[in-house]
Amino acid sequence: MILFESDYLEGCHPAILKALQDTNYEQTLGYGEDSHCARAADMIRYVFDAPDASVHFLVGGTQANATVISSILKPYQGVVCAESGHIHVHETGAVEHTGHKVLALPARDGKITAEQILSFVQAHHSDFSREHMVQPGMVYLSFPTELGTLYTKEELLAIRQVCRDWEMPLFIDGARLGYGLEASGCNVLPKDLPKIADVFYIGGTKQGALFGEAIVFSNPALAQDFRYNIKQNGGMLAKGRLLGIQFETLMNEGLYFKLARHADRLADRVRDAFRAKGFPFLVENTTNQVFPILPKSAIEQLSAEFGFERWQGVDEEHDGVRFCTSWATPESAVRALEAAVRKL
Amino acid sequence: MILFESDYLEGCHPAILKALQDTNYEQTLGYGEDSHCARAADMIRYVFDAPDASVHFLVGGTQANATVISSILKPYQGVVCAESGHIHVHETGAVEHTGHKVLALPARDGKITAEQILSFVQAHHSDFSREHMVQPGMVYLSFPTELGTLYTKEELLAIRQVCRDWEMPLFIDGARLGYGLEASGCNVLPKDLPKIADVFYIGGTKQGALFGEAIVFSNPALAQDFRYNIKQNGGMLAKGRLLGIQFETLMNEGLYFKLARHADRLADRVRDAFRAKGFPFLVENTTNQVFPILPKSAIEQLSAEFGFERWQGVDEEHDGVRFCTSWATPESAVRALEAAVRKL
Amino acid sequence: MILFESDYLEGCHPAILKALQDTNYEQTLGYGEDSHCARAADMIRYVFDAPDASVHFLVGGTQANATVISSILKPYQGVVCAESGHIHVHETGAVEHTGHKVLALPARDGKITAEQILSFVQAHHSDFSREHMVQPGMVYLSFPTELGTLYTKEELLAIRQVCRDWEMPLFIDGARLGYGLEASGCNVLPKDLPKIADVFYIGGTKQGALFGEAIVFSNPALAQDFRYNIKQNGGMLAKGRLLGIQFETLMNEGLYFKLARHADRLADRVRDAFRAKGFPFLVENTTNQVFPILPKSAIEQLSAEFGFERWQGVDEEHDGVRFCTSWATPESAVRALEAAVRKL
Amino acid sequence: MILFESDYLEGCHPAILKALQDTNYEQTLGYGEDSHCARAADMIRYVFDAPDASVHFLVGGTQANATVISSILKPYQGVVCAESGHIHVHETGAVEHTGHKVLALPARDGKITAEQILSFVQAHHSDFSREHMVQPGMVYLSFPTELGTLYTKEELLAIRQVCRDWEMPLFIDGARLGYGLEASGCNVLPKDLPKIADVFYIGGTKQGALFGEAIVFSNPALAQDFRYNIKQNGGMLAKGRLLGIQFETLMNEGLYFKLARHADRLADRVRDAFRAKGFPFLVENTTNQVFPILPKSAIEQLSAEFGFERWQGVDEEHDGVRFCTSWATPESAVRALEAAVRKL
Repeated sequence: MILFESDYLEGCHPAILKALQDTNYEQTLGYGEDSHCARAADMIRYVFDAPDASVHFLVGGTQANATVISSILKPYQGVVCAESGHIHVHETGAVEHTGHKVLALPARDGKITAEQILSFVQAHHSDFSREHMVQPGMVYLSFPTELGTLYTKEELLAIRQVCRDWEMPLFIDGARLGYGLEASGCNVLPKDLPKIADVFYIGGTKQGALFGEAIVFSNPALAQDFRYNIKQNGGMLAKGRLLGIQFETLMNEGLYFKLARHADRLADRVRDAFRAKGFPFLVENTTNQVFPILPKSAIEQLSAEFGFERWQGVDEEHDGVRFCTSWATPESAVRALEAAVRKL
Repeated sequence: MILFESDYLEGCHPAILKALQDTNYEQTLGYGEDSHCARAADMIRYVFDAPDASVHFLVGGTQANATVISSILKPYQGVVCAESGHIHVHETGAVEHTGHKVLALPARDGKITAEQILSFVQAHHSDFSREHMVQPGMVYLSFPTELGTLYTKEELLAIRQVCRDWEMPLFIDGARLGYGLEASGCNVLPKDLPKIADVFYIGGTKQGALFGEAIVFSNPALAQDFRYNIKQNGGMLAKGRLLGIQFETLMNEGLYFKLARHADRLADRVRDAFRAKGFPFLVENTTNQVFPILPKSAIEQLSAEFGFERWQGVDEEHDGVRFCTSWATPESAVRALEAAVRKL
Repeated sequence: MILFESDYLEGCHPAILKALQDTNYEQTLGYGEDSHCARAADMIRYVFDAPDASVHFLVGGTQANATVISSILKPYQGVVCAESGHIHVHETGAVEHTGHKVLALPARDGKITAEQILSFVQAHHSDFSREHMVQPGMVYLSFPTELGTLYTKEELLAIRQVCRDWEMPLFIDGARLGYGLEASGCNVLPKDLPKIADVFYIGGTKQGALFGEAIVFSNPALAQDFRYNIKQNGGMLAKGRLLGIQFETLMNEGLYFKLARHADRLADRVRDAFRAKGFPFLVENTTNQVFPILPKSAIEQLSAEFGFERWQGVDEEHDGVRFCTSWATPESAVRALEAAVRKL
Repeated sequence: MILFESDYLEGCHPAILKALQDTNYEQTLGYGEDSHCARAADMIRYVFDAPDASVHFLVGGTQANATVISSILKPYQGVVCAESGHIHVHETGAVEHTGHKVLALPARDGKITAEQILSFVQAHHSDFSREHMVQPGMVYLSFPTELGTLYTKEELLAIRQVCRDWEMPLFIDGARLGYGLEASGCNVLPKDLPKIADVFYIGGTKQGALFGEAIVFSNPALAQDFRYNIKQNGGMLAKGRLLGIQFETLMNEGLYFKLARHADRLADRVRDAFRAKGFPFLVENTTNQVFPILPKSAIEQLSAEFGFERWQGVDEEHDGVRFCTSWATPESAVRALEAAVRKL
């Protein structure tokens, strides 16, 4: 049985295990104030060309989202996002748990537009009853989105402009950031992100680490006292160096990007295999998630050998499904899948 | 330089690193629904003689405390604890962040008594204005306490009785549980804990794991839908198996307890070394934290070779300090410290 | 200038002012524990045929909604409501401020159906990832809705059934309850409400009182310690008797219902006036809010003499507007409006 | 039976009832955006010599406290106050309900000092583990305190200085502000308050109004978007004019201060009566609350004719009790009490 169910099925890249082993008996101070975290932060600032950024390491994505968002918003403000946004749908109301409404806008292929955001914000501020409504206080985007699609650089710049005009910080959830940056057709570069977003994070959990997300505040004013927020939200890892060590390893010689590239190229092959057989897709995309629409019989046939996720019903006869590749997917697994798809 | 500053200075016991290595390419479902977590939970139920307990794994202690407490309390209830309790002093208001007041009682050597709790609860419920005050809704104890002291079994049973009489769940923070259970003079056994507490946790972070706390609900009614709470509080680790693997390893052949015993015996030697030189202690205890009161000159002298924490000023000439041993402390480190103390 | 902009433009019914005057120098205990509150609660229990109900008086609707909802939900639960529901749209996120997500369903004329709720709840509980989503924990309806429409008794009973089957308390916001109960065509009686809803409130602010909403828990288990919740949410009026006195007066000899009837009949006349001229409506309804769609020229013309609210753009040439009648609207005001409409 | 149990036993000053009557059929916009609120705010700005202040009207004190405090603090900050402070003891954790810890300092006669605050804040910011603790973010004082004592102008100025030095807004709870300003020996003037506090409120509930507290932000930066906060906290009164009308009346020709003076002078007589019989006091003060320590037999004897509150046990034979006078206390009631005390 070969699983394509998600991109966090395995442990971590062996270089990380080795680094953990090599550093195991070092004695370091806790809570992220060690030399590994400092070095990892430096490497991130270098790779993303953000010399003044404030970098923090958290264990997971939901934690990162709720901690960043609640640290930025005033009590009566909410966060604007796509209705398919992870914070709106799949975090058990973690943002609301901190007291803030998620202001969900209709999304197309997981994306929202600068125009939508502008018109929502204008409508709010021109409403006579605005004080009776939650004020939009920041914008949350996922890159790639939950459907594996990507914003173009131009789309991001347009959104950034609206955010600046209305003094709303822009936050980009990069749980799968590398898979986005390495996707074919992506015109966003690592160094663009700190210029576009006020704060974003570099996902480790789904991209080769055991766990860990590196939060990058390119707007350092937003990072003031952020460590208090981390601690209060239960996100301050006692042995913080575990995060530092992992990101040191991932940033070293571009490993993070190599692993992402590997997954994206394998996903391209999976996509091609389904396309070659004439299957349509729930969404057109180029990152490590592939969403073919398959007849139920084909789903049953593939399920004998492969694990994958039923994503969404389409009609009586068809479902949309999801196959994920990852840093850990062996080429042989994709070869087996290609063969099986050809046989459908 | 040898550090005794805390019990989370190193990585983890090598058996855990090996287990991570051995399982690295297993493909498992995420979020703690894998066979390692299941097996670790079974082992815990067996070792702590709690066949019906609901067991959950979280990454850290602050997260565990806030998640458990907020899952139990009604909105207008607070948690009773010692004024020196970790949740009151050192978690940046994580409990208050979930909307609940910490009801701190005066503590003696880090402990509170059944009588204190009873009289506080009685006073609340007999007050004409009780609805204007936060209702005591549960009790939080640390075992060992933040000062390394221990409740006796009799003290715990008395507190349990008050809790039952007043329908307040009893929660025991076991961030250093093993160091307590293996301490000389401790008359509490692992199997006693589920009978005393409604919920407690077995600390991994400070006792040989990279990270991780195993929450044990011996009162399964309190665990209903607890996984929703974990997710909402940002505590659901994507690769949940990392927690399962660590606790499998620690529970295997009593490793958890052996490591604790190791630390406690070394702490006994540290205590004896200071006692032999006639130094008094901030608190008498038998666990892995040692709190001698030292002249500032002695502190300076020891600081040349050893790291340890200045805990509390005592007078012009003296400070109370803390030395921690841990699962990772080599016997040679203690020998060096003993020699240095003798030379003071 | 005659204002039809809302139903809270004036002070209160003179009988209430008189009662305040008559009782002004009585000395009573505070916080709602006085004989006026007790008597008002008794009268409500009698009028609504709910002998075991627990009755509480709050000052306003947003306060009532957030206090009731947060007292019922578990931390990871949300409240299901229509996307046009007041708590979703017009309370500045007061529910989210208490940590809970509002789970908004598409609405038709301000209403949702039992089928919608059922299918939403079933979808949640059958989802493999349900623990990553907010659990539906209760249902909130407005009667009348924010668009002045009404649920039939049959619709309410169907919703109640779904709520019972899935153990979700049903809460009815009755900010304009009387205007609903007295509307032509309404087949819900006062005595039906406690049998349908677990908790509902009787709006005073918009129906003749200076302020005040009477919360009725027909499911008394939900009312346990509710006064703590009131106090914690800042809703416990020091001179609680002011609420008791007002509801005593409103419940006396059916004044509450008479005032509502008055407003509804005048609203019928307003509706008829617009209908007679062939204007369509944003929504068909029979309560005290009237929503004609008017040409902009007509709006301008009417604005010279009357205040009313622009509710929603319809097309280039037309807007939907809202006229409210109330307990205080004089018949002469409606006559003037009728005349003006005829002249359009 | 004459009640001295609190200062909110009666309705309101007749001038307020008259004003409500006179304005009853005015049609005004809701939510405090009417001409009465505007005029009352102007009067307050004039009387307190705060031409730039932002003034808002809320219904009650707990609501005012939680709304102001949560609008000012960052998530990880707490509010410093006396351990006897109303927000710490008697508001059912309303502040914690908004996510913030109350940082209670030991109090003497209900007061804390500039030195205490300074040393607490310095200790926090110099602590190596400060990020693990709640950061002091503002200071809350009551004037008069819960024990009826007063800060001198010099004490307030010293506290103000610490607050400015550490960028912590100073908030003064003036639930009984008038009773403080009119107390014998008070050297604080109305015009001093806006210069001392960043925000304070003028209590109406206990000083002649039916209800209502006027919040005055002398630091207008703190008032930005405050109306959103009011709404979100359930404190925006639909018929906001009711608050405006009451404060217009109270500010007119110094009525607010006259009523306070009346109560204070009667309290002086009550104090003198007990003092003349040689009874000691729980606390020495000069405002409208009197706290004699009485033998239980005397308490029983007085209880036959008078209502008053048992405040605190003193010893086997004695209790401290509280007598409150108010704007409504008739001189005859005090005369009767004087006679009864003489007979003890």
